[in-house]
Amino acid sequence: MAKLDALIEELVTANRILAREGVVDSFGHVSTRHPDDPRRYLLSRSRAPDCIENDDIMEFALDGTPIDARGRAPYLERFIHGALYEARPDVMSVVHNHSESVIPYGVTGKAIKPIFHMGASIGHDVPIWDSHDHFGDTALLVENMEMGRDLAKLMGEGATALMRGHGATVVGRDIRHAVYISVYLEVNARLQKQAMDMGEVKFLTAGEVDKVASRTTSYGINRAWENWCRRAGRPFRPDQG
Amino acid sequence: MAKLDALIEELVTANRILAREGVVDSFGHVSTRHPDDPRRYLLSRSRAPDCIENDDIMEFALDGTPIDARGRAPYLERFIHGALYEARPDVMSVVHNHSESVIPYGVTGKAIKPIFHMGASIGHDVPIWDSHDHFGDTALLVENMEMGRDLAKLMGEGATALMRGHGATVVGRDIRHAVYISVYLEVNARLQKQAMDMGEVKFLTAGEVDKVASRTTSYGINRAWENWCRRAGRPFRPDQG
Amino acid sequence: MAKLDALIEELVTANRILAREGVVDSFGHVSTRHPDDPRRYLLSRSRAPDCIENDDIMEFALDGTPIDARGRAPYLERFIHGALYEARPDVMSVVHNHSESVIPYGVTGKAIKPIFHMGASIGHDVPIWDSHDHFGDTALLVENMEMGRDLAKLMGEGATALMRGHGATVVGRDIRHAVYISVYLEVNARLQKQAMDMGEVKFLTAGEVDKVASRTTSYGINRAWENWCRRAGRPFRPDQG
Amino acid sequence: MAKLDALIEELVTANRILAREGVVDSFGHVSTRHPDDPRRYLLSRSRAPDCIENDDIMEFALDGTPIDARGRAPYLERFIHGALYEARPDVMSVVHNHSESVIPYGVTGKAIKPIFHMGASIGHDVPIWDSHDHFGDTALLVENMEMGRDLAKLMGEGATALMRGHGATVVGRDIRHAVYISVYLEVNARLQKQAMDMGEVKFLTAGEVDKVASRTTSYGINRAWENWCRRAGRPFRPDQG
Repeated sequence: MAKLDALIEELVTANRILAREGVVDSFGHVSTRHPDDPRRYLLSRSRAPDCIENDDIMEFALDGTPIDARGRAPYLERFIHGALYEARPDVMSVVHNHSESVIPYGVTGKAIKPIFHMGASIGHDVPIWDSHDHFGDTALLVENMEMGRDLAKLMGEGATALMRGHGATVVGRDIRHAVYISVYLEVNARLQKQAMDMGEVKFLTAGEVDKVASRTTSYGINRAWENWCRRAGRPFRPDQG
Repeated sequence: MAKLDALIEELVTANRILAREGVVDSFGHVSTRHPDDPRRYLLSRSRAPDCIENDDIMEFALDGTPIDARGRAPYLERFIHGALYEARPDVMSVVHNHSESVIPYGVTGKAIKPIFHMGASIGHDVPIWDSHDHFGDTALLVENMEMGRDLAKLMGEGATALMRGHGATVVGRDIRHAVYISVYLEVNARLQKQAMDMGEVKFLTAGEVDKVASRTTSYGINRAWENWCRRAGRPFRPDQG
Repeated sequence: MAKLDALIEELVTANRILAREGVVDSFGHVSTRHPDDPRRYLLSRSRAPDCIENDDIMEFALDGTPIDARGRAPYLERFIHGALYEARPDVMSVVHNHSESVIPYGVTGKAIKPIFHMGASIGHDVPIWDSHDHFGDTALLVENMEMGRDLAKLMGEGATALMRGHGATVVGRDIRHAVYISVYLEVNARLQKQAMDMGEVKFLTAGEVDKVASRTTSYGINRAWENWCRRAGRPFRPDQG
Repeated sequence: MAKLDALIEELVTANRILAREGVVDSFGHVSTRHPDDPRRYLLSRSRAPDCIENDDIMEFALDGTPIDARGRAPYLERFIHGALYEARPDVMSVVHNHSESVIPYGVTGKAIKPIFHMGASIGHDVPIWDSHDHFGDTALLVENMEMGRDLAKLMGEGATALMRGHGATVVGRDIRHAVYISVYLEVNARLQKQAMDMGEVKFLTAGEVDKVASRTTSYGINRAWENWCRRAGRPFRPDQG
């Protein structure tokens, strides 16, 4: 129980950090798999990330059914989260966002690739999911499990996927990892745009990407987490709880 | 009476939000149609949006005549508002701004089009009004009803129009809707510029624009409104009053 | 005396505003002609604009000689100010800055021209002064009256001049006017860059520039000034004192 | 002893300033040579720059061995610092960062050169160190003295070096000098990008670079330092202690 409380606190902090670091604005969300039941996940009720409090965190079955909703309205796009937890036992946290610098890549088909070591965790490739391919004209939202599973399938074993005309989805082995990748996906996209304007870009080699990713441990991520907590006005806990 | 007070409070909040979100700087304004008399509208006296208080809100006839001015000087460009309320019974709120990312489109003739779902509310097309076409060399300001009506005519049934060498005008079905479109017109323009630099852009399809726009309800807009109120230091009221 | 005190207060406010609005960083300065003696001007001691207090304001003869320095060290580049007051009886305030968006124009020879009505006060043309033309390899600083006069000569009757590899200088009919032009020179340069990236730019016509400039009165500038005072944490005085 | 305390205080301030001015984010670090022993240097334990307190400052031998670590974990990349102090007796402070605007140059091979007088201190040339040249696929981190020495060798007698796919390293004759160059390397890179987009760039002449650099004294740097201290919420000491 104390463990669950700590995780809820961590999830609220993650929401505030994503807002403070410009990865989400009034929209976007972050979830974590339930620590005691891998068939459930925790996600806020429908609310802007920077406004979220502990009581907003709801519990969902993987198919998106709320457990004990108590009148709280869920996000329409919660199926992104459920479908990824369903497909990927290794995934413990999911971030969905409209991160500004990544959107131009999704609509032009340009590939985001790691341009500096901080971007290595986005993976060798960032695939682009286009909802139009299988679902035609929609409101672009992932509003049922079928769409969620289609996105999860395209994502495969990767950490990131762009969504054409919409945003991006990121997964991680825990909340801090997913937030870390989300922040540096945005930074990498911003820097890559500047570099592409200048000329031919020398991206990280495949070997470099692997070496950096294997070194991106909780130890390093926590250095950023302490800083982000301070910036977001949240207490820092060295241990994720 | 309480209803009018609440609406004035809402209008002050809208001004502060537009300033905080970078849609207006020291200039620009937002109005609402009078709740009890469709031939009148509410608009601040001539003041920078972020400085506006409840007592600054004035009442105007559609032709721009102040009702009970009590020494308060009106905006010169209030005719933008009156002309749109006159032409469009469906319009309940008007925003005029010099939103930075949209101005380059107005002076180059490049069309802003929805590039992601958050931009769908700007409409299929964002026409460009050039005051020079019918009025020649002016100070570019909409300083009488004739100019306002010319702008309203070009805008037609749309939600947005650029003004060459000047800025943009946005209308909505209520204050929050007009503010919402104004914010995402700016974001869409910013992202579209980045994408155009990269190559061929895949804009939302016409069907996607329609589907998203039909789903842009008060429910979704209120999620942003709560966040914007928090950022602007204003109390959030779930109901628009 | 009270008049002089009020002007000193205004000059301190101008420094703080220029810092807050991003026109100056740790360097750059703003002066005003002495209200009682046109052969003198007021300018801070050598200090970063956002740190300046009333006691830092010094008095100078037009040739840059400090009057009653009381141990305060002057800016090396004060000759910019003296040379312009000497050449231009109409000038009552001078701003020198390293405003970021204008510097790329100075080093590429691209002309900044009014792209929207807020930019009209920069004038029909913004000439580029290159210290190398008459002075060869220098530290690029205007460190004597000869260099100041060379700059003033190039500026002619205009309101603005770029300085190659250095920054810009702006003059106005009073402090608020010079600050206003400085802020919108930066904004105009930023927007023009975006527009030039997109394609052919339709600048304001010469007639439009004249009409807007003739309408840029204290009344309009004060709307911005109130907002800038609020943002800089300075009291707003409707009258310049 | 008081001298050492003052220098530790100065080093903490430098960390906070680099964070506030956007030169470092959660990563990056700044060191100073020990005032009493040129074979040692002072550097924080592994922590985000904006979180660093006096007690975090550790002492290291030039080869990176901590002196009296007291359980504090050092930065992995401290070898950058040791190698530069070893190779360069004139260097008293080292900054390593992932400054955003410089990274695109490192991955495209475009040369950063002084574009305005504030950028002259970066030097005539900013060489690019590619860890892949001598070390192949790595995590791109300078994690031993061999790599540090390779970087120091490439840097030669210069003040700056880019690191491909990683960031930059800057040295100075004292802490304030190294911070000053780091800030304006970022600004110069940002402005140069804008200028290169516009067309042919007229960089500072070699003579101008030398003249400006020779004039960049503690006196001028302190003007910025006071401002940066104010922005970072740190007390300003006119003397570096």
